[in-house]
Amino acid sequence: MPETVGDIGEFGLIRRISSLLNKEGVRSERVSLGIGDDTASFLPRPGYEVLVTCDCMVEGRHYLPGRIRPYDLGRRAMTLNISDIGAMGGRPLYALVSLGLKPEILVRDVEEMYRGFLAELNPFGASVIGGNLTTSGNGMFIDITLVGEVEQGKAVRRSGAGPGDVILVTGYPGQAAAGLQLLLRTADDSKILEHPLVKIYNTPSHRALLGEAIAKAGCATAMIDTSDGFLGDLGHICEESVVGAELFKEKLPVSEALREAAFTLQRDPYDFLLGDSDDYELVMTCRPQDVTLLRSVAVRCCPVPLTEVGRITDRALEITLLLPGGERRPVKPSGWDHFRLSKNSGSGV
Amino acid sequence: MPETVGDIGEFGLIRRISSLLNKEGVRSERVSLGIGDDTASFLPRPGYEVLVTCDCMVEGRHYLPGRIRPYDLGRRAMTLNISDIGAMGGRPLYALVSLGLKPEILVRDVEEMYRGFLAELNPFGASVIGGNLTTSGNGMFIDITLVGEVEQGKAVRRSGAGPGDVILVTGYPGQAAAGLQLLLRTADDSKILEHPLVKIYNTPSHRALLGEAIAKAGCATAMIDTSDGFLGDLGHICEESVVGAELFKEKLPVSEALREAAFTLQRDPYDFLLGDSDDYELVMTCRPQDVTLLRSVAVRCCPVPLTEVGRITDRALEITLLLPGGERRPVKPSGWDHFRLSKNSGSGV
Repeated sequence: MPETVGDIGEFGLIRRISSLLNKEGVRSERVSLGIGDDTASFLPRPGYEVLVTCDCMVEGRHYLPGRIRPYDLGRRAMTLNISDIGAMGGRPLYALVSLGLKPEILVRDVEEMYRGFLAELNPFGASVIGGNLTTSGNGMFIDITLVGEVEQGKAVRRSGAGPGDVILVTGYPGQAAAGLQLLLRTADDSKILEHPLVKIYNTPSHRALLGEAIAKAGCATAMIDTSDGFLGDLGHICEESVVGAELFKEKLPVSEALREAAFTLQRDPYDFLLGDSDDYELVMTCRPQDVTLLRSVAVRCCPVPLTEVGRITDRALEITLLLPGGERRPVKPSGWDHFRLSKNSGSGV
Repeated sequence: MPETVGDIGEFGLIRRISSLLNKEGVRSERVSLGIGDDTASFLPRPGYEVLVTCDCMVEGRHYLPGRIRPYDLGRRAMTLNISDIGAMGGRPLYALVSLGLKPEILVRDVEEMYRGFLAELNPFGASVIGGNLTTSGNGMFIDITLVGEVEQGKAVRRSGAGPGDVILVTGYPGQAAAGLQLLLRTADDSKILEHPLVKIYNTPSHRALLGEAIAKAGCATAMIDTSDGFLGDLGHICEESVVGAELFKEKLPVSEALREAAFTLQRDPYDFLLGDSDDYELVMTCRPQDVTLLRSVAVRCCPVPLTEVGRITDRALEITLLLPGGERRPVKPSGWDHFRLSKNSGSGV
């Protein structure tokens, strides 16, 4: 019988995880105290601000139990947080992992989840320096706090967009939402896990390296990652910057894979692209004269497409979709709302 | 009908909480970005290490739903974390609060919980700078990450105890465990919430000011807070310092209230004092010549009793209880293990 976390207990599990982290994790710089004391500690780098974020994934709500491998679950949970650090233009440094586990969970599955965390952290020289383990009555949860750093004054906020700024987005938003729908409509079958869009939903990529490069170059006025959906997150920029936005429908980047999936699902691909979808792409704004610089930064940094999709207006909180025929359609930032019971959203699993 | 979090939604709740924090919370120093962006950020103080800890409370496991007021629940959850920062000798600065909420929870109860957080944070000039809200299937959870600071090189670790060091403890460990037992055996009735030991269980005090003063004075060799019970936490010091301990039974501080409660519960008060109990007292060690300094620091800092209860030995991981008649009884650090299913502990609610 494979061991469960109930078999080895909290302290046994802490020992197993510490051992795994020692063997397979990197040693981060400037950590004065890692796992094994009342707190962890580090010596911050002079001239840098400390960034700190937390994001929580609850079983059945943010992922489908049994429809994602423990390793991928770990990668996904860490990616969400890395994406937030990246959206500020920062670099991830240290993670604290708080897990709510059922006693019957297999130790090897928890270890695989930690390997997933490390797969995302190691490339940055980042590490797990603390956390908390507890049992959770019915559902599991993974709550990660990620600490990062950004050069003082270089963080790119949501609040800096101004009228006339160009709106750009990386990659192909909406693919994750379509992937989730494919997963939901398919009976339990491991083949669906190999579908490109299901993979994008289960193990999205972050754009943190690009975010950092953009912040260093100082060429964006506002930036956010798409975790509440493209319109939802553009809406956050509009709210914090007290501006509006115009989007050119024909410029919105619909991938071939999304178009095919939307056809299969009998849905409009733009519903996916604009609506709730957690793709962890970056939405940013910049002054028109900085678009070329921004593009050259992106090209040097990573092969992700960067598409100009609209412009910022002075009509606070109004987002308008400009259709090819000249029609102007007001759209509402929906955004993934975790509480609304009446919400008829595909993400509301 | 009072509003629920499901009624106002995630973003509505964020707005309500932000407004409450703005009105009733303090503005912490050195925060460059608070709630409302992808991450929070702060500018660390030169010459200080950053401390970071997280602790999670799960409904039904770490607190009894309906047997603690939302305000007290907030105080308790924050105290746990402040205690960890204090046990390193640090000062709390910034909190990130991650909540798993059921949609039917009342907004006013969530607000009361935040008032409880602030009641603990405000005296330190500390504030909530970020967090995460999500729905949780069945049980609620509160996961707090607390950031603190300590002068570089001044943190008091678990690993510094040496043979011959004196062991001291603040206050009266075991009272929280007895309070929990009183709560468990009493039918739902609000009067029991006023019992002094139930109050100690529901809203324990931290000793963070004392911890900070001790670290500044540099007079402790090791320190920890009692969240796994007195023996459990002394055991952590022994493990990390690779030492043993001898305890003088007659010196162990049994409060009159604990003695009475133990009598009522037909239990040995020492079971409570030594066993699983989350009192958030401090256990510390120091060289014999530093006891006087340590006591004078404590007297100047706060009116909490500080009792010398034993000494550190070189017999690694062996803890011995010395009885008044001269008998030596080996004892095992039990410690609150959150996973063992077979655990017959009162804390395993």
